[in-house]
Amino acid sequence: MPSEWDSHTALTATGDGLLGAELDPGWVVGGGVNGGYLLGVVGRAVAETIPAKPHPLSVSAYYLSAARPGPAQVSTRLLREGGSVTTVSAELAQEGATRIAVLATYGDLGALPDDVATTAEPPAIPPLEECVPGSLAPEETRRVAPLMERFDLRFDPACVGWAVGEPSGRGHIQAWFRMADGHDVDPVGLLMVCDALPPVTFDLGRPGWAPTLELTVHVRAVPAPGWLRVSHRTRNVAGGMFEEDCEVWDSAGRLVAQSRQLAMQPRA
Amino acid sequence: MPSEWDSHTALTATGDGLLGAELDPGWVVGGGVNGGYLLGVVGRAVAETIPAKPHPLSVSAYYLSAARPGPAQVSTRLLREGGSVTTVSAELAQEGATRIAVLATYGDLGALPDDVATTAEPPAIPPLEECVPGSLAPEETRRVAPLMERFDLRFDPACVGWAVGEPSGRGHIQAWFRMADGHDVDPVGLLMVCDALPPVTFDLGRPGWAPTLELTVHVRAVPAPGWLRVSHRTRNVAGGMFEEDCEVWDSAGRLVAQSRQLAMQPRA
Repeated sequence: MPSEWDSHTALTATGDGLLGAELDPGWVVGGGVNGGYLLGVVGRAVAETIPAKPHPLSVSAYYLSAARPGPAQVSTRLLREGGSVTTVSAELAQEGATRIAVLATYGDLGALPDDVATTAEPPAIPPLEECVPGSLAPEETRRVAPLMERFDLRFDPACVGWAVGEPSGRGHIQAWFRMADGHDVDPVGLLMVCDALPPVTFDLGRPGWAPTLELTVHVRAVPAPGWLRVSHRTRNVAGGMFEEDCEVWDSAGRLVAQSRQLAMQPRA
Repeated sequence: MPSEWDSHTALTATGDGLLGAELDPGWVVGGGVNGGYLLGVVGRAVAETIPAKPHPLSVSAYYLSAARPGPAQVSTRLLREGGSVTTVSAELAQEGATRIAVLATYGDLGALPDDVATTAEPPAIPPLEECVPGSLAPEETRRVAPLMERFDLRFDPACVGWAVGEPSGRGHIQAWFRMADGHDVDPVGLLMVCDALPPVTFDLGRPGWAPTLELTVHVRAVPAPGWLRVSHRTRNVAGGMFEEDCEVWDSAGRLVAQSRQLAMQPRA
């Protein structure tokens, strides 16, 4: 049985050189379709275009207009095919309006040297059973964010005070993550995981939707099966914007993705 | 008298909808032309294309092939013109080969709200007179990196042990920065500053050129006149690649740019 993720990101050749997608309403959050899901759809389209380079290494997305559930078209253009990496430009459009523009360099993560000299530390999150499940969110929240039904999220209790009106003020949210249907996340799926949690501004006492201007994800390794740990931080809220840094660690203790996005502050 | 930076990034309309640049040999480092300089040239081309949105907010560059000094052509394509931000796609090419592909969102930094709620701390660098000037670099280094003549760099002594064969191993380099001719850096110039220092892998005892795959810069404010402080760090060297995070702080103590690049490890 295919995973929900595979079904929701399925693509069909439309005959005019484009790939057709059907954006599922289950990924709506606030006023539009989740940006990580959009990036996953584009990321899969790129992977299908260059089968010899199956994995995203770096993907940058610029968000131009809010997407809606329903049909979408992905166009891709080969910029450079190299021996170890290939770079592609891609756009996802609906009804003639571009939703996101993307640059992406793909390669084969399995072919990389296996040296690791990281000084980064995995997020210290209490055991699963001590964390706060996303399913405890109020009915009202779940109604405007059907996105949440896609995941099994277990929030670090120290970073979830915002849910009861007591944000920590540190600009930090972290959680255990897996897909609701229990299927494991592949490298393209990591593009989505980096934009799956609530905006880190929740933890600064600024609730509300935070539109992404730009999101770049570096995929550093194929995730091992099992639960992922996801951490979001911001350090510079200024000029109506903030950066959100995300790390994704796998069950083997490997840093598998690093991302940064520039987003607009939610309106008070 | 125009600044060296203005001269080296000057553009001329070529009549076929492109902008022509002349890449100056003074920006060569290792086997090619510095990637930050290339991004500055493209960044200026974008600014000239959309004069109502003079400042880069977010710029992502994918490096496809090594550039050489001499003529180059910049093409731009408008993706979306909005009320407060405009997004453009751009490419810089030489002899028909694309050197870098860029996505960029521009706006007016002066029109942003002036709230700042940063938890980031400016780099703690000793006073200028206690730092190590880049001009002390060996003749050999300066010959393969004429790039260094463009800047007045004063390295934090705690981060420059690599210059005498004693890297700290922390993956951290920081320095005071200004242009050699004393001219101040503008927001487009910040795109270059984020790729001006030696690769942070020097501080890990891995000398050599580190080719950039991808570089994204977020410009967060117009820099105040005077010396800048630039900090580079890496936390995850793995699979033959590393991320390099850069911050640029201005003389008024404001975080004016944040960037991250994904680069290939130098060969031993």
